[in-house]
Amino acid sequence: MNNRTEINELGEFGLIDRITKNFLHHNPTSRIGVGDDAAVIDYGKDYMLLSTDMLVEGVHFDLSYMPIQHLGYKSISINVSDIAAMNGIPQQVVIGVGLSNRFSVEAVDKLYEGIQAACKDFKVDLVGGDTTSSPSGLILSVSVTGIVEKNRISLRSKVEKGDIICATGDLGGAYMGLQVLEREKQVFLANPDMQPDLRKYPYITGRQLKPRARMDIIYELGEMNVKPKAMIDISDGLASELFHLSKRSGAGFFIYEDKLPIDKQTYDTAVEFNIDPVTAVMNGGEDYELLFSINQEDFEVLKNHPDIHFIGYAAELEKGINLVTKNQNVVPIKAQGWDHFK
Amino acid sequence: MNNRTEINELGEFGLIDRITKNFLHHNPTSRIGVGDDAAVIDYGKDYMLLSTDMLVEGVHFDLSYMPIQHLGYKSISINVSDIAAMNGIPQQVVIGVGLSNRFSVEAVDKLYEGIQAACKDFKVDLVGGDTTSSPSGLILSVSVTGIVEKNRISLRSKVEKGDIICATGDLGGAYMGLQVLEREKQVFLANPDMQPDLRKYPYITGRQLKPRARMDIIYELGEMNVKPKAMIDISDGLASELFHLSKRSGAGFFIYEDKLPIDKQTYDTAVEFNIDPVTAVMNGGEDYELLFSINQEDFEVLKNHPDIHFIGYAAELEKGINLVTKNQNVVPIKAQGWDHFK
Repeated sequence: MNNRTEINELGEFGLIDRITKNFLHHNPTSRIGVGDDAAVIDYGKDYMLLSTDMLVEGVHFDLSYMPIQHLGYKSISINVSDIAAMNGIPQQVVIGVGLSNRFSVEAVDKLYEGIQAACKDFKVDLVGGDTTSSPSGLILSVSVTGIVEKNRISLRSKVEKGDIICATGDLGGAYMGLQVLEREKQVFLANPDMQPDLRKYPYITGRQLKPRARMDIIYELGEMNVKPKAMIDISDGLASELFHLSKRSGAGFFIYEDKLPIDKQTYDTAVEFNIDPVTAVMNGGEDYELLFSINQEDFEVLKNHPDIHFIGYAAELEKGINLVTKNQNVVPIKAQGWDHFK
Repeated sequence: MNNRTEINELGEFGLIDRITKNFLHHNPTSRIGVGDDAAVIDYGKDYMLLSTDMLVEGVHFDLSYMPIQHLGYKSISINVSDIAAMNGIPQQVVIGVGLSNRFSVEAVDKLYEGIQAACKDFKVDLVGGDTTSSPSGLILSVSVTGIVEKNRISLRSKVEKGDIICATGDLGGAYMGLQVLEREKQVFLANPDMQPDLRKYPYITGRQLKPRARMDIIYELGEMNVKPKAMIDISDGLASELFHLSKRSGAGFFIYEDKLPIDKQTYDTAVEFNIDPVTAVMNGGEDYELLFSINQEDFEVLKNHPDIHFIGYAAELEKGINLVTKNQNVVPIKAQGWDHFK
């Protein structure tokens, strides 16, 4: 009898665990493989970092409201974000593009305008790629390299009890931006004479359409000589990233609701959509901010930084992953990040 | 007025030229970008190599006759082949996989069995990836790293007048294998009771379904201390690769018809299909053999190698790219490699 297991029974991370558990490394240059934001490769003085992300039309983006330049920009930005999460500096990208015959050369030009703008912003070089046709829609696959001094690398495994947990920027905005864009699309589909009105939501739609990897934070931490011990980028939602850090480091967390960074537009839009703003922060993805842990002594150096927020602390694994609510209740956080297969 | 240019008006290589011409490099580590089999990155003692390839169901493969394990193997092999073409040793791969809900976990297991077998054969480490859903079919995007000693790198630009042109293995087999597989598929579609009979064609169908990157040749050349000056892998057909070498190096070529390496099964099947065997060699793709140039003095060292064939020599650019036929006619070779967009 032929057994068939559906992929959504395992989910994305279950599937990754399953397919990678039997892989042995043959090369001494392969230091760390699957399980962090990027692979760690030892080619000498520094570590080289390598990461890859695939964006598929109809799954990751909708060109009916995503300008194709922004998609190009985003494809680079989200890869750079993985290098940032290792405390690294991005160096090179290679890009695989699959294009259906719906796309003209002019559309491809616009896609690469966005790619080029991101390469300039993040000082990363496009050094190769593969361009092919696709039976349906647009596929973008970007791989990025980076470098990091060996003693400055940030790994998910390095959270220690007592560390302060920091988050950059604000969270939940990209998710609420997506809700607005989806709603306006439905309005437009129902009545094509109605033009989408996004003027009320410039910040959160921008968060969704043109996320910026936080390389600025990486450079500033370097200048302040603060090393983020463990770090991860917030791509699937804060809750999901806390679980990843916990899994790799064996730490538990206490996160304070009243310390969560939420922009006013995110908050107001969540209320408008009848979504708990904390849910948007915890489970909304694609903010591409950084979540990291620091030694307590580094707090003094960072405490006045306008864009770094101290949202909680690390504890023993047995304590679990918890939210301390505004009225001081401690409730376990559940991981409900975005899973492409669910 | 909105001008629309179709991508097939430019073709794959025209499109690549167009989208990459404005890209500047920001990092001193980026030595060579688009235009060779892999990008060349300078991280210290050796060069690091980086390349990427995307395989899209319905464009690059047909799972009705391609066992999914073989597809996994092939996805690694064709990337390793790009590293081989730089005279490099493959080190790491990262894999992006897009899966529609047609695929079960068991199918994904089989895909990764093939990937794992190739990683073992080529001593390359799977260090990361991205797994996502896809609205239609299977998408595989593999990026590979390699290393090469700086003075051993082979670049397309390094052909010089008088160089001997070498090809490994035999050519045209993968293309003829594809013709057989496509024919048997049509027979099966017309009458599902007819099982495909591939027993007559084991070699050429194997060439199509499970190509092996020629790392064996790279290791042997190293042991014999012969450096291939310019090298490229034969993925789009011999003619297309000669044009790539010519474009980068400014050399012309004379290739001898009676020196072209053709397996007997390839030859016989071409005759059966009413295809000129030379056309299969020149314009059939996916053999993943190596095409390289050597100094004349290295001929003595290689002349008895059973799997390296001396098919012609390099001349001035003005001479063009020519085939010297069996009856000593000189005819210009046209590039008619496989173009996904045509």
